[in-house]
Amino acid sequence: MQTVKLGIVGVGTMGAIHAQSVLEGCIPRCQLTAICDPKAERLNLFSAVEGFASVDDLLRLSEIDAVLIATPHYSHTTIGIKALETGRHVLVEKPISVHKSDGERLLAAHHASNQVFAAMFNQRTDPFYLKLRQLVQSGDLGAIRRVSWTITNWFRTEAYYRSSDWRATWAGEGGGVLLNQCPHNLDLFQWIFGMPAQVRAFCHFGRYHDIEVEDDVTAYLEYPDGMTAVFSTSTGEAPGTNRLEVAAERGKVVIENDLFLFTRNEVPMSEFSRTDPGRFSAPQTWEIRIPISGHGPQHNGVLGNFVSAILDGTPLIAPAREGLNSLELANAFLLSTLENRAIKLPIDGALFNQHLQKLIASSTRPKPGVFRTGSDDMHRLTTNKSLSR
Amino acid sequence: MQTVKLGIVGVGTMGAIHAQSVLEGCIPRCQLTAICDPKAERLNLFSAVEGFASVDDLLRLSEIDAVLIATPHYSHTTIGIKALETGRHVLVEKPISVHKSDGERLLAAHHASNQVFAAMFNQRTDPFYLKLRQLVQSGDLGAIRRVSWTITNWFRTEAYYRSSDWRATWAGEGGGVLLNQCPHNLDLFQWIFGMPAQVRAFCHFGRYHDIEVEDDVTAYLEYPDGMTAVFSTSTGEAPGTNRLEVAAERGKVVIENDLFLFTRNEVPMSEFSRTDPGRFSAPQTWEIRIPISGHGPQHNGVLGNFVSAILDGTPLIAPAREGLNSLELANAFLLSTLENRAIKLPIDGALFNQHLQKLIASSTRPKPGVFRTGSDDMHRLTTNKSLSR
Repeated sequence: MQTVKLGIVGVGTMGAIHAQSVLEGCIPRCQLTAICDPKAERLNLFSAVEGFASVDDLLRLSEIDAVLIATPHYSHTTIGIKALETGRHVLVEKPISVHKSDGERLLAAHHASNQVFAAMFNQRTDPFYLKLRQLVQSGDLGAIRRVSWTITNWFRTEAYYRSSDWRATWAGEGGGVLLNQCPHNLDLFQWIFGMPAQVRAFCHFGRYHDIEVEDDVTAYLEYPDGMTAVFSTSTGEAPGTNRLEVAAERGKVVIENDLFLFTRNEVPMSEFSRTDPGRFSAPQTWEIRIPISGHGPQHNGVLGNFVSAILDGTPLIAPAREGLNSLELANAFLLSTLENRAIKLPIDGALFNQHLQKLIASSTRPKPGVFRTGSDDMHRLTTNKSLSR
Repeated sequence: MQTVKLGIVGVGTMGAIHAQSVLEGCIPRCQLTAICDPKAERLNLFSAVEGFASVDDLLRLSEIDAVLIATPHYSHTTIGIKALETGRHVLVEKPISVHKSDGERLLAAHHASNQVFAAMFNQRTDPFYLKLRQLVQSGDLGAIRRVSWTITNWFRTEAYYRSSDWRATWAGEGGGVLLNQCPHNLDLFQWIFGMPAQVRAFCHFGRYHDIEVEDDVTAYLEYPDGMTAVFSTSTGEAPGTNRLEVAAERGKVVIENDLFLFTRNEVPMSEFSRTDPGRFSAPQTWEIRIPISGHGPQHNGVLGNFVSAILDGTPLIAPAREGLNSLELANAFLLSTLENRAIKLPIDGALFNQHLQKLIASSTRPKPGVFRTGSDDMHRLTTNKSLSR
């Protein structure tokens, strides 16, 4: 195989961007062969490419090697399973599913070791986070003690939430900021720091918007080694903040406003505390500014890596199975709020799903039949009018 | 009265600093008339001033108008009550007491409206916090939605904790970072933002040091109007952070590293969200840097204000009764951890005291008999060797 023949399912906001990138030649050795969307006017935007209204037809009739899934969240599972079962390589948008049980079903459909299955965690290509991960993994920071990520620059207007009827509903999207905007941050969090032992989260539902799902979250995390963390997010705050602070034995890292600042302790803080005779003394520090420019290749980087993984066996930037962790964190934050208690990880996926089904059942929002969890909704999804992101 | 004749009880670390300030003439119209400390070598440092080993003798024999109490926390209550009962004006170091019930007993001893009773919340004189309070109270920020204060620059060494046997014990100090370092921050918090409706806190006991009390705290607060907040502190982190971030309708304020930054929304964020047709748009902002230099007169400012209140009737910067709020917050954070649940305010002071007594009873640390809560320990305190701060 010299090139990868790609089919894109869902050419709403993100799918259309991906299609355009491939058509413009931004992804070497990748050819856009087919697209699929129930909306004819969207298919018409890409008239040079074979278009299908139904996923079944796409998978049955087109000669694609790989599928990129950019549909509403619930259908990632159903369409992903279907695509994997045809043997195609699959790249799925984040989140890989809406809830842990669906995520596990999706991953279970991936058997073949030579079948590439990746997830669109494009922020893993950002050199700020790559550098932080390197500092953590190399031991340059020493043991990590506390992390605080305030990520409130996901401001969204009411117009945004009104733009699709599936959006920000339990039946249509399965969650709010944790499912739509934060999968990136949650993925980076587990990618850099690993998974916590337990979480206590405080989600607010429709705090800032006329929606039923969470648009404001404060979560407290405890790790097996004692590390603690706070993760705060909101789609209601403007101007918002994106600040990641890491307190470690070897010093403090702050990533904010395109700056990477490392205040390095000459002596690790706990060692200094134990050995220094002063009562009010503190370690000498170096103020280090690590120069980083730009935010990396992002979506095109992940898509190009997917193609290289298929053609050359290049390791994936974001294997789909790792997408289960951000999903588990999002589910755990909601579960903690709904059960009003700390939640130990791994969570009970069935318990979370029970809560989700109750929320869907008691929702007063539009509930198109197609937006149901479970394995039998794939066909209906493919004919629904609301595939837009 | 032309000058205030002051007596200082406890001339350890803070008391000695206050005594020196008065002797050097830093406090107009204030005369250091007497000091009291059980340690003779401390009294000898101030040989120009009448010295007493016992509080009872000081209050009975010296011609002082006012008393400044700078003893270990528990005795603030007992000595404070005794001093108030003699009719003296009283300035008490923070915290006003160790727990809410003691604080209420102390305040109940203050009857006379012309008797001045103040607390040493010196950070209320800091122009950074004065300016923030002004912006909040004037409505310039609009409704406050979220506050985050990371105040981890209270690093203390093991040598600090070993410096006195009463320090960082349940019996001797009654708490850790919340009782010793953070009363300032908790007082500023309530002074600027008011009191929360409930809190959920996660205190870690001896996380960084060989102590039994809390040296690391993460607290989540919810306010009656829906405002949320996170308060994080530690004495184990170096280099530490002191960053106060306020997300309000009219924009965001960040106080950090001697900068006061106000990113002002031209349109309040919720109004913009409701009315703007864009899906990914956000309010236009002004980046405002409010010039502030220095951190104000601090301790001398509060002491001078105490003198002016006595001589001129000047309103107090920090009336002692307001010290109950920071105490209630500190107690509530501990109570939430000990009961492993969210705590509604006002707290049940008796319930907190039950927990504290259990902690004292089960402690394996030195428990000098003098470091007991209750009203009968005053005499013993005045003869104990460990009045040092």
